[in-house]
Amino acid sequence: MAAVKTHGSPLSTATQRVLACLYEKGVEFQFVPVNMGAGEHKSEKYLSINPFGQVPAFEEGDFKLFESRAITQYIANEYSDKGAQLLLPGSNKSMAVLQLWKEVEAHQFDPASSKLAWELFYKPFFGLATDTAVVEENEAKLTKVLDVYETRLAQSKYLACDYFTLADLHHLPNIQCLLGTPSKKLLDSRPHVSAWVADITARPAWSKVLAMQKQ
Amino acid sequence: MAAVKTHGSPLSTATQRVLACLYEKGVEFQFVPVNMGAGEHKSEKYLSINPFGQVPAFEEGDFKLFESRAITQYIANEYSDKGAQLLLPGSNKSMAVLQLWKEVEAHQFDPASSKLAWELFYKPFFGLATDTAVVEENEAKLTKVLDVYETRLAQSKYLACDYFTLADLHHLPNIQCLLGTPSKKLLDSRPHVSAWVADITARPAWSKVLAMQKQ
Ligand SMILES: N[C@@H](CCC(=O)N[C@@H](CS)C(=O)NCC(=O)O)C(=O)O
Ligand SMILES: N[C@@H](CCC(=O)N[C@@H](CS)C(=O)NCC(=O)O)C(=O)O
Repeated sequence: MAAVKTHGSPLSTATQRVLACLYEKGVEFQFVPVNMGAGEHKSEKYLSINPFGQVPAFEEGDFKLFESRAITQYIANEYSDKGAQLLLPGSNKSMAVLQLWKEVEAHQFDPASSKLAWELFYKPFFGLATDTAVVEENEAKLTKVLDVYETRLAQSKYLACDYFTLADLHHLPNIQCLLGTPSKKLLDSRPHVSAWVADITARPAWSKVLAMQKQ
Repeated sequence: MAAVKTHGSPLSTATQRVLACLYEKGVEFQFVPVNMGAGEHKSEKYLSINPFGQVPAFEEGDFKLFESRAITQYIANEYSDKGAQLLLPGSNKSMAVLQLWKEVEAHQFDPASSKLAWELFYKPFFGLATDTAVVEENEAKLTKVLDVYETRLAQSKYLACDYFTLADLHHLPNIQCLLGTPSKKLLDSRPHVSAWVADITARPAWSKVLAMQKQ
């Protein structure tokens, strides 16, 4: 049994963020499926690993962690000698540039894209009706964000630097959802964004995450 | 003229986060007020420092940064030998615990508390009408978050460890807003949360931020 355990659901974007990181680093792990339909994420047992009752959660021996982006950062630091680099070590300034683009994902990209993913991807999947006003508002927000990305990606192959880092990786789950919705047009219409999307979604580690969804 | 420049508005919560950090570290800086009423944050000049057209932005010589939490992390790393510690150095695991509580602030506390601050603090200030449905929804969300904080703060004096770190500091601006609204009751009714609020808002660095608002 692997020392590293990840609890979650392969359909959850936050879980996918952690899975992508584990595969990028080549860290062996045990996946513990959480039956969200049955409310398992609100059980006493699960709340003892993540008191917010959300997936994912992470364990390594008796060290417990939650919040997907805290988990990916820990994995990238702890397994720095394995797999893809994912970090931008060196000076405080280079680390700050990575941090900046991670914050941009968290505070600019994620709010708009996760609302679009919910309205256009998950709601139809669960048989719920899409709220078009929410779609319009968040497509407008995402447009502004992607305009900044288009300029950035014209200067830099990836968001933080010339190689793939956590800043790019954190985008994968919501981008994958958007690709299955009409909002895909916002990605397609920007040449540098669309090349970046094609590049990062083609990574072997990401294919492994998608394969887990199909199981 | 100080090498460090912070652009923003003393009324902006994101700007306050950076100012609090600069005062905690005792870093000399020049404050460059951005006249948001006049739309200065959307001027070409300002967009060259922060392409999202938001405050704050940060400069140190020709190094430019935006996103308040990326700026505080940089300041804490770069000026590690000055002022309050703010970080939890040591092992990857201790750094992960700090990261976890920073993520909790960003993804659990901030979404609910900033919506309450907007509805109950800023809207009345600007003569706009509060949306009570939004207040109700976000008070319910914040209640769940603060229940987790109450349990955590019963075990640990501050969120990440037994001293004040960035994880606590990042909460200050929204907490200060909530203290001026009816949602204050959610803080007051939890003994450990309320002791923590009293402690962190009494820090001399935070008083300096509040004094800047009054100028
Ligand atoms: N900020 C958290 C978000 C986690 C999250 O929202 N997880 C969703 C699934 S993607 C969940 O568990 N939802 C159920 C719930 O909130 O009750 C993270 O990044 O880990
Ligand atoms: N995630 C950003 C948020 C910055 C932000 O929302 N700033 C507000 C003031 S607190 C702003 O500039 N609003 C004007 C706008 O968005 O146009 C940060 O933490 O720096």
